[in-house]
Amino acid sequence: MSTPLAQLAAIVGDAHLLTAESDIAPFCLDWRKRYLGRPLAVALPGSTAEVAALVGYCAANGIPIVPQGGNTGTCGAATPDDSGRALVIAMRRLNKVREVDAANATMTLEAGVTLAEAQQAAAAVDRLFPLSLASEGSCQIGGNLSTNAGGLAVLRYGTMRELALGLEVVLPDGQVLNLLSGLRKDTTGLDLKQLFIGAEGTLGLITAATLKLFPRPTARATALIGIADATESVAWLAELKAVFGDRLTTFELISRRCLELVDQYQPQARVPFITPWALLIELSDGGASAELNERLVGWLAERAMLDGVIAQSEAERQALWAVREAISEAQAAHGPSIKHDIAVPVSAIPAFMQDAATRLEAAFPGVQIVAFGHVGDGSLHYNVSYTRPGNADLFDDEERVNAIVYDAVYAVHGTLAAEHGIGQLKAHWLARYKDPAALALMRQIKALLDPQGLMNPGKLY
Amino acid sequence: MSTPLAQLAAIVGDAHLLTAESDIAPFCLDWRKRYLGRPLAVALPGSTAEVAALVGYCAANGIPIVPQGGNTGTCGAATPDDSGRALVIAMRRLNKVREVDAANATMTLEAGVTLAEAQQAAAAVDRLFPLSLASEGSCQIGGNLSTNAGGLAVLRYGTMRELALGLEVVLPDGQVLNLLSGLRKDTTGLDLKQLFIGAEGTLGLITAATLKLFPRPTARATALIGIADATESVAWLAELKAVFGDRLTTFELISRRCLELVDQYQPQARVPFITPWALLIELSDGGASAELNERLVGWLAERAMLDGVIAQSEAERQALWAVREAISEAQAAHGPSIKHDIAVPVSAIPAFMQDAATRLEAAFPGVQIVAFGHVGDGSLHYNVSYTRPGNADLFDDEERVNAIVYDAVYAVHGTLAAEHGIGQLKAHWLARYKDPAALALMRQIKALLDPQGLMNPGKLY
Repeated sequence: MSTPLAQLAAIVGDAHLLTAESDIAPFCLDWRKRYLGRPLAVALPGSTAEVAALVGYCAANGIPIVPQGGNTGTCGAATPDDSGRALVIAMRRLNKVREVDAANATMTLEAGVTLAEAQQAAAAVDRLFPLSLASEGSCQIGGNLSTNAGGLAVLRYGTMRELALGLEVVLPDGQVLNLLSGLRKDTTGLDLKQLFIGAEGTLGLITAATLKLFPRPTARATALIGIADATESVAWLAELKAVFGDRLTTFELISRRCLELVDQYQPQARVPFITPWALLIELSDGGASAELNERLVGWLAERAMLDGVIAQSEAERQALWAVREAISEAQAAHGPSIKHDIAVPVSAIPAFMQDAATRLEAAFPGVQIVAFGHVGDGSLHYNVSYTRPGNADLFDDEERVNAIVYDAVYAVHGTLAAEHGIGQLKAHWLARYKDPAALALMRQIKALLDPQGLMNPGKLY
Repeated sequence: MSTPLAQLAAIVGDAHLLTAESDIAPFCLDWRKRYLGRPLAVALPGSTAEVAALVGYCAANGIPIVPQGGNTGTCGAATPDDSGRALVIAMRRLNKVREVDAANATMTLEAGVTLAEAQQAAAAVDRLFPLSLASEGSCQIGGNLSTNAGGLAVLRYGTMRELALGLEVVLPDGQVLNLLSGLRKDTTGLDLKQLFIGAEGTLGLITAATLKLFPRPTARATALIGIADATESVAWLAELKAVFGDRLTTFELISRRCLELVDQYQPQARVPFITPWALLIELSDGGASAELNERLVGWLAERAMLDGVIAQSEAERQALWAVREAISEAQAAHGPSIKHDIAVPVSAIPAFMQDAATRLEAAFPGVQIVAFGHVGDGSLHYNVSYTRPGNADLFDDEERVNAIVYDAVYAVHGTLAAEHGIGQLKAHWLARYKDPAALALMRQIKALLDPQGLMNPGKLY
């Protein structure tokens, strides 16, 4: 064993420094199988002190570090390059629930706790940790923080940034920065934790966090509504918020094409109707579901719509959600598509969809667009296929499609990365669309905290 | 006129560069009359471009800058020193409402808009901008951001940091950083705006912001409840949140001493009962007040309490609030006190109050403590008097009292500045209690952005 590997193994223990090809393989390939890297080794530290020792050793010896959580990211932020030089630090053993304080509505978790485990730790004291993602069984709190994860409950509870009250971070020089805090109000200067949230591990390594908890909703009311025009969705959203406030926890817009694809490829999901557009609406609250449902029924009774189904039981509720959740698989069954993780101001959604479709059809006659997503917070899945007849050579058009979509997004002051981050995949797009002064300041801060450029090199900037 | 003054006047116009003693006097003294400064001049820029030109000129000529909003801060952060060297840049003319987007639930305002004007701009489109402070008629959005203002609605809506989606900032070199955005989801790298929120003008000058709007509540239900022990308040809060969720917008804890002082000095406020502790509880929601009130009445009917009043009309609601709002004046009438702007974890409030009282009584037998505040978010007004018989020479004991209170605060991981910031008043305390690694990183970031140290020198760090 060479000296660096021996030294690293001495820090975490031989069993926790992986070097055999079969052991490290799962850490080398990203979730979407776009990036295959080759690290020096994979370290599995079991404590913040071990993380600090690893990072300190790497800083002293010029070894690049790639932090990795559940390895469920979609932009390659957690995958090493193929130089064989970088140490992957995977956080799965740093997985203690340090404290749950139900009365303060906070919990302090280590970074390697999975999102599902975090939800369970909250549920165990009858509280809700609201972050919810498709990958929640595997993704980890540290990764959720480093990518400022969003998901299904942002409309009501905000992104991971808004759910974090405090952080513990190992800085690129190996120093431990203790910013853990369970306070809702604290104005003692710069809120340094914000630097590390969404930084994709480029400024330091998050080892623990104090997160907000909420009351667990006991009532739910769910409806799928058919409407004629996406433009109507903006008014629906505003009126629902005015009447139900934060009880509105889901507001998803689904296009006819999505409904047709689910109907065709996922018939077990039983699409109840096919309309030009559909809205999936869910309210949640304390108290009883019957009462909440009655209020939703009463409100819907006075509104014009093309069609509508209100869940009368938990089984019916799950059936409506099944339609929404079947879209991705139905679309995959139909063929590949070029996917986008965009957000625009809610008020600009109808104009953006019109404009982007016009631009794409001009460039690619016959193009198919599948749009759906968390419209309540302006974020959209916007998937493009059939740029050529028979969907041939789709990915040869990827850069052109992206440029057209992103031009339309930035024309309404949107973003090319709503909730999946930048990683390796979008770094060149960020350089194109981000305000140059902002990009320059980002790079200055990176150089300040990580002058050797060892923390997750090649990502983000 | 000397050359710098002529150059500065050329930027903003002669009428907007104040140098006469009577003109500049209001800008030289802080709101609590603790700090009296003497600036080079006071500039009143009318546009972001003028701010950028002023800052650029100062950067090139080594002139310190003190940004000033409504000058209502309590820690001297907006007051120049007495060297006669600094330029005060007061933002009152930069007061345009640039955009209100009701459908996106956002508005973009210039920094000199007062908080009351911001609330009105939201109300004009039937939305709520929830920040609410005693000084809202005078304080400005730029100052609210620079101090991460809190106030009465944090429990439900968060502090100014949580209300800001985007910022426009003039950097210390005069460059304009455009971080304006109306997006709820955006994961394109570092969230740079966070650096400037709560920075008290030490990293740059905020010129505009995009802020979140909310539905306007149409229903309110308000009660004043007497309880025997502050410990009970934690359970009350948790149960109210579980049942009413975000409809709980006020949860204030008031001690017997507060009730007695109001009864004695502000009899028109008509204290309805005197109990060891009281809770002021308010719910707000869409829909009708009668329905919300009924739910609160129903819930309270099942709870043990010493006494209780539920408002049956808007007049009765205001009467209950009058008790809470009379505390400060009643206390002032009783005599001076040493005030603290602290927060602790909600779960630690009872233990903290016991511990701090024990420590203070040991040091100052006969000491009087008046505690009240926004307990729903852990923040407390904690006022100490009668350290000596007859409240004599109170402020000679201020540093000792502060050290005792802050030691008790940090023993439960609280903060010495919940919502008033640091400014000049508390910089030495921050240096004592803040994590040294955090303080060092704050100073590194300050040096990176403002290498000449010209932005609001002598504050915060």
